[in-house]
Amino acid sequence: MAPLIEPRVLKGFRDFLPAAEIERRQLTEIIEASFRSFGFVPIDTPALEYAEILLGKGGGETEKQVYRFRDHGDRDVALRFDLTVPFARFMAEHRSELPLPFKRYHIAKVWRGENTQRGRYREFTQCDFDIVGSESAGSDFEILLMMRETLRAIGVGDVTIRLNHRSVFNRFLRRLGIEDKSVEILRTVDKLAKIGKESTLSQLSELISSENANDVLNYIQPKTNYKETLAAITEAAGGPGPDTERLEALYQFMEDAGIADVFVLDPSITRGLDYYTGVVYETFLNDLPDIGSVCSGGRYDNLAALYSKEQLPGVGASIGLDRLIAALEALDRREKRFSFAEIAIACTDENLAGKYQALAGQFRRAGVPCEVFTEAKKLVQQYALAEKKGARWVIVCPADACTKEPLRFTLRELATRQDTEGLCVEDVIRIVKG
Amino acid sequence: MAPLIEPRVLKGFRDFLPAAEIERRQLTEIIEASFRSFGFVPIDTPALEYAEILLGKGGGETEKQVYRFRDHGDRDVALRFDLTVPFARFMAEHRSELPLPFKRYHIAKVWRGENTQRGRYREFTQCDFDIVGSESAGSDFEILLMMRETLRAIGVGDVTIRLNHRSVFNRFLRRLGIEDKSVEILRTVDKLAKIGKESTLSQLSELISSENANDVLNYIQPKTNYKETLAAITEAAGGPGPDTERLEALYQFMEDAGIADVFVLDPSITRGLDYYTGVVYETFLNDLPDIGSVCSGGRYDNLAALYSKEQLPGVGASIGLDRLIAALEALDRREKRFSFAEIAIACTDENLAGKYQALAGQFRRAGVPCEVFTEAKKLVQQYALAEKKGARWVIVCPADACTKEPLRFTLRELATRQDTEGLCVEDVIRIVKG
Repeated sequence: MAPLIEPRVLKGFRDFLPAAEIERRQLTEIIEASFRSFGFVPIDTPALEYAEILLGKGGGETEKQVYRFRDHGDRDVALRFDLTVPFARFMAEHRSELPLPFKRYHIAKVWRGENTQRGRYREFTQCDFDIVGSESAGSDFEILLMMRETLRAIGVGDVTIRLNHRSVFNRFLRRLGIEDKSVEILRTVDKLAKIGKESTLSQLSELISSENANDVLNYIQPKTNYKETLAAITEAAGGPGPDTERLEALYQFMEDAGIADVFVLDPSITRGLDYYTGVVYETFLNDLPDIGSVCSGGRYDNLAALYSKEQLPGVGASIGLDRLIAALEALDRREKRFSFAEIAIACTDENLAGKYQALAGQFRRAGVPCEVFTEAKKLVQQYALAEKKGARWVIVCPADACTKEPLRFTLRELATRQDTEGLCVEDVIRIVKG
Repeated sequence: MAPLIEPRVLKGFRDFLPAAEIERRQLTEIIEASFRSFGFVPIDTPALEYAEILLGKGGGETEKQVYRFRDHGDRDVALRFDLTVPFARFMAEHRSELPLPFKRYHIAKVWRGENTQRGRYREFTQCDFDIVGSESAGSDFEILLMMRETLRAIGVGDVTIRLNHRSVFNRFLRRLGIEDKSVEILRTVDKLAKIGKESTLSQLSELISSENANDVLNYIQPKTNYKETLAAITEAAGGPGPDTERLEALYQFMEDAGIADVFVLDPSITRGLDYYTGVVYETFLNDLPDIGSVCSGGRYDNLAALYSKEQLPGVGASIGLDRLIAALEALDRREKRFSFAEIAIACTDENLAGKYQALAGQFRRAGVPCEVFTEAKKLVQQYALAEKKGARWVIVCPADACTKEPLRFTLRELATRQDTEGLCVEDVIRIVKG
């Protein structure tokens, strides 16, 4: 006999056992229901694509992390590392088949051969949603509203969504005459929450005059409320423009929809460097701000520039499912469920499997999941198994009762160890649904 | 500017546009609900595993098809090509954490670099369900019942499930003294449906005497009903045994559950060669038998033999989602849906986006998905867009009406082009839900 192969998964990869997988599926079902309620539709794209498509812009950290290889036909291929690049390719390829504005969501796994030391995974799930083909402030607002409503549906509704507009900041830098350093300044400012005010100031002073560094630091501090912050950055940027008007329109929409209290205009939010061109935002849990943003996004000018000449402006956001689950865990708000079936039918005679299933069918058709045990072990063992599996009740149906109509049986409540005799199907449905 | 990259997917891979993806998701949701109603729980495993784990048995067609490469850490890795091998590894690794019998389902993508000429895909979805840690006939029956109930839930309930028992056939061959040729005979017999009786007979005659070939061919023909076939193969195998008793018990269960008419005992069903050791089965659509089996499976002695010394008997089946969708297409039973939102709110003033969303929120909270348009185009254009997106109604809410309570607005039915004025939220919910 050949020696055994050690059963193990690759570093950074995970098995999901039933309780964890049930949780993940229930979360994605809630997220998906929220997306659908806004009229967003799902798409899917291949896990594997031409490396040229995925790495078009090439270089940098991404390229080092991507799983890339030659397939059977010697094609240079790679596993997707996010859902944005495949979506850009998708839009360029199928533009003529899709009515604009196109509102889509995509919930799927992505792969990155990252350093796993910081609790990062190499396989993880992203939940992206975007509106493409619209420049309206209403689209920006819809994404913001969806972020809020979706997190609320999940049960983490106590959030602060911090937003900003990239171009106001750029105008401000231009006014100070330091726009040539904007990339470095943005990169430094982006670390403010992590490294603190002092370090940010000292890093900025290496790039620009200390007077300018002070101006920048002052610029990125939110004032007492949205309106005041907006007034301050408008002034700093040299007066109103389409960018500040957009931020003003968004505030009006928030007020009209009665959700303004959730939003903070935060000039320090920048969201990376290349991709976003308009409004950007991050979402923090008020009970757990240190875990970082659980849902981020922004507006971009041109989604599919690498693959198409057609300009495709859009706005979108992404929920990181793993960070969200880590947050729920830290907040002790995880609902552990080991099964969907709350009732099990005990097996007292293995020859009655057909009868048990016929009985179970009556529950299932009434929308009550029901497990059937198929081994005639001692009842105490079956109760113990049912409990381990997450059931709440066990039906015990003696052989003679199982063949008579109407069926009468005993229901054991596992938590209390109480038996109720002489029940019929309808009784049990009432108890389980009640 | 860099030249454009041609947007395209790899051969054998597919994008799913909204209508196709909505269909796939709705099907898997029905399948999943059916699995859950039987108390089965979901698991998930990594897409990427050690090649050694996935290819343990090595060799053959599989190895040529698998996507295999070296990762950043120079590990020999591969994309999973089915859900059975990862499940075997999973059971060996997590056995102690799982109460037996363990009933799991797994719906996920798998990858095979197959020849795509026969309409096969290199990325496709499998829906597997298994009971591990049970040798009972009741478990065999539960899987058979789930196949039938799940296909019925999908709307292809008019099926014939053909089953057989591997060991009865082996006993029969032993009795003829040709058990040393069993692998070749099984392989030939497996092709009966494809190549016909004549060719099967002539191929068998190359392996065994023509008298034996005739006996084999006679053996594999079903008789007029389950009982008669069972009697014939029992006799041919030299009398009753645990295998024929199992087939008899299954028939009893089918009768007790009132579904015996769906099943045919078909001694020609063999399902490959190595893996299955007990009952095996295939499912055919009565309206479309030529498409082949849409759901197949069987009983195995030892799931995780490669990775663990512990014997893990089980029984399971797999639904091929792509073949099922092809079948629904051929039967003209596909439900084309382009959206989940049946109502859209027209945009007559872009400054009212907040109000529109507040109105939409009332529908969404009532369980009525609702899309909000954010561009103030002409109403006819908005009607056309709504229609393309699959909506049935459009709400038109003039600016002054949008700020008064209670809200009153006009509902356009797109199919009839009829407008109804002066409706409130409750009216529309009634119409849409009705």
